This record gives sequence, structure tokens and C-alpha cells, in this order.
Amino acid sequence: MPFTSPVSQEAAGLHTEIQQFYARQMHLLDDGEADAWADTFTEDGTFAANAHPEPARGRETIRTAATAAAAQRAAQGLQVRHWLGMLDVRPQDDGSVRARSYALIINTPAGGQAAVHLSTTCEDVLVRGEDGGWLVSSRQVVRDDLR
Amino acid sequence: MPFTSPVSQEAAGLHTEIQQFYARQMHLLDDGEADAWADTFTEDGTFAANAHPEPARGRETIRTAATAAAAQRAAQGLQVRHWLGMLDVRPQDDGSVRARSYALIINTPAGGQAAVHLSTTCEDVLVRGEDGGWLVSSRQVVRDDLR
Amino acid sequence: MPFTSPVSQEAAGLHTEIQQFYARQMHLLDDGEADAWADTFTEDGTFAANAHPEPARGRETIRTAATAAAAQRAAQGLQVRHWLGMLDVRPQDDGSVRARSYALIINTPAGGQAAVHLSTTCEDVLVRGEDGGWLVSSRQVVRDDLR
Repeated sequence: MPFTSPVSQEAAGLHTEIQQFYARQMHLLDDGEADAWADTFTEDGTFAANAHPEPARGRETIRTAATAAAAQRAAQGLQVRHWLGMLDVRPQDDGSVRARSYALIINTPAGGQAAVHLSTTCEDVLVRGEDGGWLVSSRQVVRDDLR
Repeated sequence: MPFTSPVSQEAAGLHTEIQQFYARQMHLLDDGEADAWADTFTEDGTFAANAHPEPARGRETIRTAATAAAAQRAAQGLQVRHWLGMLDVRPQDDGSVRARSYALIINTPAGGQAAVHLSTTCEDVLVRGEDGGWLVSSRQVVRDDLR
Repeated sequence: MPFTSPVSQEAAGLHTEIQQFYARQMHLLDDGEADAWADTFTEDGTFAANAHPEPARGRETIRTAATAAAAQRAAQGLQVRHWLGMLDVRPQDDGSVRARSYALIINTPAGGQAAVHLSTTCEDVLVRGEDGGWLVSSRQVVRDDLR
């Protein structure tokens, strides 16, 4: 029963650090900063989703897809908010972190009604970059409706 | 004004520990692991809800109810997500913790549209188990629509 | 790339402290404790929103508006829940904190269906009060539908 083990001060700090990372990462995405958002992945980072036939492989491929998606949302006049929650952080022996969370996508059309768009899970492997901060090495998003 | 007192490093660690506990507890519930979920309650744990005439008393009673609910959701092809948030953690003198949070239930039918199902509050008394981790000693869920 | 810098133990404690502050502040608001909620602002605190032509200036002005809003919700039989999430905390050199978060408002009518009411962002400047706790010095709420 992994949840019954106590959490050290160090582990608590790590959990918070990952929360802070996700907050800034999602702000970038929802602010339309596709370029800066892509930089939160490692150079060989992957983004897989059960809604897509193939994973996006490599930061530049992820950047291209994110830039196109941001342009589409802007053209639609849609404000998207990515909420991550129920974050389970598991440090690995090699210094990486496995993070499993729920992600909720809330869409608001200009002048319209905010609503839940999608409910998903998000499984990331996070690694420390050269400056000590976190980067996504691999991401797996699973939409609840396509499960 | 309780919110104006500063939070010690120790209290910050506790708050994070409880968040991590809830993340894993809700993952178990939503993954259909009713058995492992029931083990997050103390042997004499109680689960009360304003939607039910009587509280469920004891881990085995909670287990039976959770197992039946998980089977029902599986039969319906429904993916449920329990989100806890706005967590207020109050350590008690006897070592237990009172935790008050909001809980949102998001339902997604297979191939269908995710939506808010219920908004509730959740008031728990948490105690440390033998191995130092947390267990729910009592839970009170109040649905906002039945308030 | 601010999100790549590592988070010190101190910064992790601060992030948790702010989360705990928001939990209690929103509980007060949603419990209809408009008076205690207004006391979480500084005496010269401001509350600006893109839904309002002018900011509310000063704790007593904020108190008057909050008291009226609470009475209206009670008269409507509406249970409102303010969820803050995706919290980005940035300590400033003067000891204040800039906190940017998403806020979701979930409404449940008595006997009715819970639903997303609004999606917003919330940008606060927080300062420590005399007893060491946090107070809102300025708040800027931006509704996604009016952006």
C-alpha cells in the first residue's frame, strides 16, 4: 500500500516543485505560448495520446503541433484552460520522477459559456534539465471518453 | 482568523503529504480498485453522506459498498473521476488531522461527453497507520444539491 | 525559462502556505462568511474584475459588495464553490508574493444539477499581515468569456 508510507520533508518539497512546474507549463500552453511550452520537453521528448494514432517524437515535432493547435484555438476565439490535479509523484532511482495526474480541459468561447471539454489522465516521466529544473521526457495522455 | 497564522516547514510537509494521500486514494477509487481503496480506511472507519440515510460503519462494510459501486460503474461503461481540492488541513493535538476539502465528481460515458456530475464537500478525520502513513478514520461527504 | 529553476525547501513551504491560505479564504466565501472573507484583504486592498467597470477599493468597500453577493446567493438557494488551481507563486524582493492561478466557479442550485458557471484567471499580490499570515493586497479576476 504505497500511500501509507510517510512522506519525508524532501519528498514534500519535490511534490510542490512538480505542482509549480505544471502550473507554469499549463499557463504557457493556455496563454498561446506554444514555443516556450515546447521548451518544457526534452529534446527527445515524446507526447503520446490515445486520441492520436502515433506519438509525437522530439521537441521540434511537439513544437510544430503545439504551434498549429494554438493558432487554431486563437482563430476559433476559444480560451482553453488545462487543469491538472490529483497529482501522484513517484521519485525513481535514476533521479527521474513518474507523475500521474488527472487533467481536465475547460473551454470558454468568447462571450459564451464555460464548460468541461474533456477529462483525461496524464502520465509523465520528468527529468531534471541542466539548470536543475524539470522537463517532460515522456507524456501519455488518455482521454476518458476513448478509453 | 486561522488563515493568517504562518505555516511552519513541518505543517507545509503535512499539507503536501495529505494531498499525496488523496491523489492515490482517488486513483484507486477511479481505477476500480475497490478493495485497495477500502484499505485506506481504519478498521472501524466510518463513511457518512447526506445522500445516505445511515453511515457505513467499519472497513468491511465500506468495502462491500465500494465493490458494488465499482461493478455498477463498470457495467455502465462510465469513467468517474473524483477531484479533491481547496484542501484545508488542521493538525489536532492527538496527532490526527482534520481535512476539509471540496470534491467534484466528473463523469465520462464511453464515447460520450465529460461533465460535472456532483459538487460536494468532504470532511475527514485522518490518523496515522502502523507504518506511518494515513488512514481515514471518518469521512463526511455533503452533496451541494441536497444541502 | 522560469519553470526550470529548482525550488528550494523554503519556496516549497511558501507554495503550500499560499495553497492553504486560498483554501480557507474560499471556504469562507462559499460558506457565506462575507465578513471574515473581507478580512483576508488589506485595509487598502483592491479587487478588480473585467466584469466590473471599476475596481472595489478598500476592505470596507469589498466587505459591502461581498455581503450583498452572499445575501443574493442565499436568496437564490445557490451553493457556489470557488476552485483555485494551477497556482504559480512568485516571491518578490519586497517580501510580497505574486500568485497567478486559474479559478473555476461551480454552481449548484438546491435540488439541481452542479455545473461550471465561469472560468477565470486570478492574479493576486499577497502581503504578510502583522501576525505573519497572508492578506490580499490586490486581486485581478479576468473572466475567460469576457477576455
